[in-house]
Amino acid sequence: METKRLVFSGSGGQGVITAAIILAEAAALFEGLEAVQSQSYGPEARGGATRSDVIISNRPVHYPKVGEPNILVCLTQEAYNRYSGIIRPGGLLLADSRHVQTRRNVDARHVSLPMYKEVVNRLAQPVVFNICVLGALLGLTELVHVAALMSSLEKRLPPRLLPVNRQALELGLELGKAAV
Amino acid sequence: METKRLVFSGSGGQGVITAAIILAEAAALFEGLEAVQSQSYGPEARGGATRSDVIISNRPVHYPKVGEPNILVCLTQEAYNRYSGIIRPGGLLLADSRHVQTRRNVDARHVSLPMYKEVVNRLAQPVVFNICVLGALLGLTELVHVAALMSSLEKRLPPRLLPVNRQALELGLELGKAAV
Repeated sequence: METKRLVFSGSGGQGVITAAIILAEAAALFEGLEAVQSQSYGPEARGGATRSDVIISNRPVHYPKVGEPNILVCLTQEAYNRYSGIIRPGGLLLADSRHVQTRRNVDARHVSLPMYKEVVNRLAQPVVFNICVLGALLGLTELVHVAALMSSLEKRLPPRLLPVNRQALELGLELGKAAV
Repeated sequence: METKRLVFSGSGGQGVITAAIILAEAAALFEGLEAVQSQSYGPEARGGATRSDVIISNRPVHYPKVGEPNILVCLTQEAYNRYSGIIRPGGLLLADSRHVQTRRNVDARHVSLPMYKEVVNRLAQPVVFNICVLGALLGLTELVHVAALMSSLEKRLPPRLLPVNRQALELGLELGKAAV
């Protein structure tokens, strides 16, 4: 596989870091790939922006920071404004349509999906927004198998939280696949 | 300040990654420092060992992986066996005395504390073991202020979980200070 470099961006409390860890663990523990996941906290973190990087590869990853992501996820306008310029030409930019107005002035495929809106309307559980985002990513790309992501959720969450997380994942998958 | 490089190691479910994120956020968001936190998942992760790296500095951190940590935390025997050799000469090795038998064959200050035992005996909540470990670290070193760590906990946890986490932090501080 080609090495995949992702940046998840948003604000604290949206579960950006958790989503990145769940994806990295899905790839490493359940797909036999190598994965690195990192957070760099500088002045921008104190401004409220959260960024989390994931690299997935079938080879050892020596440098864990992502310069130009193949895939950039933006869950707030601030995150979009700050990071949309770093996407690799031809990459995929996934934004939440409730939180982000995209400008399409970067050379990337823009996909804006009503993930937050649908999570609130259909599951009434905003806390699983981040898992819906992961589902949308898997609907749009073949980063990891859905079963691997589900195994990663099962490893990380208490059993009582699994049903709603599974629903959020499936909702995201549906939204992502409809946009392919 | 001198740049501090830490490695937390243990097994999945011990909260190693969460502890690392809480420490990094304490330094970056509440002490005005730079911090980088990362996980590398390779074959050893599939064996059950969890490792999480943190770098704290007053300068931007360009390379986020830790080669030789100043501070190595080992919460399982497997983690100790795997990582004790990487500690920087003169560094600090903090181990849990219930889970790890240390051999003192590396050039580092070894501190073995009954963190898990005391968390279970005095708080009856093994889930806050990782926060007790952070408390012990702060009792042994001056990585960040206790107030910064508490602010980081408050940012990350729902209010109902704060009291027991505060108790775990204080318990760890007590154990760490007694070992200085």
